[in-house]
Amino acid sequence: MTQKKKAVVLLSGGLDSGTVLSIVSNSDYECYCLSFRYGQRHSIELEKAAQIAKYCGAKQHRIIEIDIAQLGGSSLTDRSMEVPKSRGNLDEVNEIPNTYVPVRNLIFLSYAVAWAEVLDCKDIFIGVNCYDYSGYPDCRPEFIESFQRCANLASANAVTGKGEIAIHAPIIKMTKAEIIKKGSELGFDYALTHSCYDPINAKPCGKCDSCQLRLKGFREAGLIDPVEYAD
Amino acid sequence: MTQKKKAVVLLSGGLDSGTVLSIVSNSDYECYCLSFRYGQRHSIELEKAAQIAKYCGAKQHRIIEIDIAQLGGSSLTDRSMEVPKSRGNLDEVNEIPNTYVPVRNLIFLSYAVAWAEVLDCKDIFIGVNCYDYSGYPDCRPEFIESFQRCANLASANAVTGKGEIAIHAPIIKMTKAEIIKKGSELGFDYALTHSCYDPINAKPCGKCDSCQLRLKGFREAGLIDPVEYAD
Repeated sequence: MTQKKKAVVLLSGGLDSGTVLSIVSNSDYECYCLSFRYGQRHSIELEKAAQIAKYCGAKQHRIIEIDIAQLGGSSLTDRSMEVPKSRGNLDEVNEIPNTYVPVRNLIFLSYAVAWAEVLDCKDIFIGVNCYDYSGYPDCRPEFIESFQRCANLASANAVTGKGEIAIHAPIIKMTKAEIIKKGSELGFDYALTHSCYDPINAKPCGKCDSCQLRLKGFREAGLIDPVEYAD
Repeated sequence: MTQKKKAVVLLSGGLDSGTVLSIVSNSDYECYCLSFRYGQRHSIELEKAAQIAKYCGAKQHRIIEIDIAQLGGSSLTDRSMEVPKSRGNLDEVNEIPNTYVPVRNLIFLSYAVAWAEVLDCKDIFIGVNCYDYSGYPDCRPEFIESFQRCANLASANAVTGKGEIAIHAPIIKMTKAEIIKKGSELGFDYALTHSCYDPINAKPCGKCDSCQLRLKGFREAGLIDPVEYAD
């Protein structure tokens, strides 16, 4: 039996990163999943992440505590700010929503590179997506490409000649419907994923931007969302 | 009175970052100091950082908890590894010492960018230095330049046109002696700084690489290190 390559996979417990883990674990990789507790209001995301890692047969799942909340600036971590219900037609949005956590993906990817270096792993996967949600600057392809260059300059591998790290964003140019179709083809169980910004009794609200994007995606994919919504 | 510009200054409690804070606080900046608790064996560094921030009149000092230690890979955070006493002639060293924490500066700078964004601050200062210690890849000028490009792609400022972030590394091309001379000219008190990897009863050992570099720097600067060493 040949040894599988290692992959560090960022896993939030949401639909996008769950699909990415499904894609990677169905490829020739042994998966090391990395999640973050960063003052999210709801720990349900991390419970889902653990279930998804197990479901996909991940080798390891680590949860890193980061106290980004004390820096402020986001309604997802700052309890004094209200989560927006809907910002209207999502296609017309070009401002940055206040659910934005400053440079979150920059921080998450930096930890992923640290772990990859320790594991002697060359492949990092992240479930960013640039089409459905244009408001987050650190979801853009040019950011991912720039981060890869920067990470290889920061890493000991760059000095010791152990090889370069690649940052993979396999769903970055897929629509939500394409993502859902892809995961469904691979047999991924979307009932394990959590997307809602503001759940009611642990059930998704069905009203926030994230729920709306998800429901629209399932509709366009011609599939039923297996998750039970609050009334 | 005109309002001072804001600066986020990474502050470890060591000689280099202390000098940088001295330089920045003597310029036209209001300083927001950022330190990290990342499983260091000795909390003395963070106590020193707090004293230095106060001494230099910093506006704020935040300490972020990061649990990089669970990822392993460094004798500075992994208690099962031994800290090397001396690796011989430091000028001849080109391997990466096991005191290296994987991509530490990448992680620290990422948090700095997050805070800078929240503060609406455009200037980040870091005390990396490429001459005295060539073993750390994330202390090189090409890493700092690459990180600045990456940070501006990650940041909301890049989208909203609020202006770009600059990563400043004012001592990156200075020798340890030049750094010490500069700080001394500015009236900085090096008794407040801590450099030792392996202190004995809270006093620096005088033997580890970091102590040796420091002592060599004071010797070459023609100055006396005001810190009291262990016997």
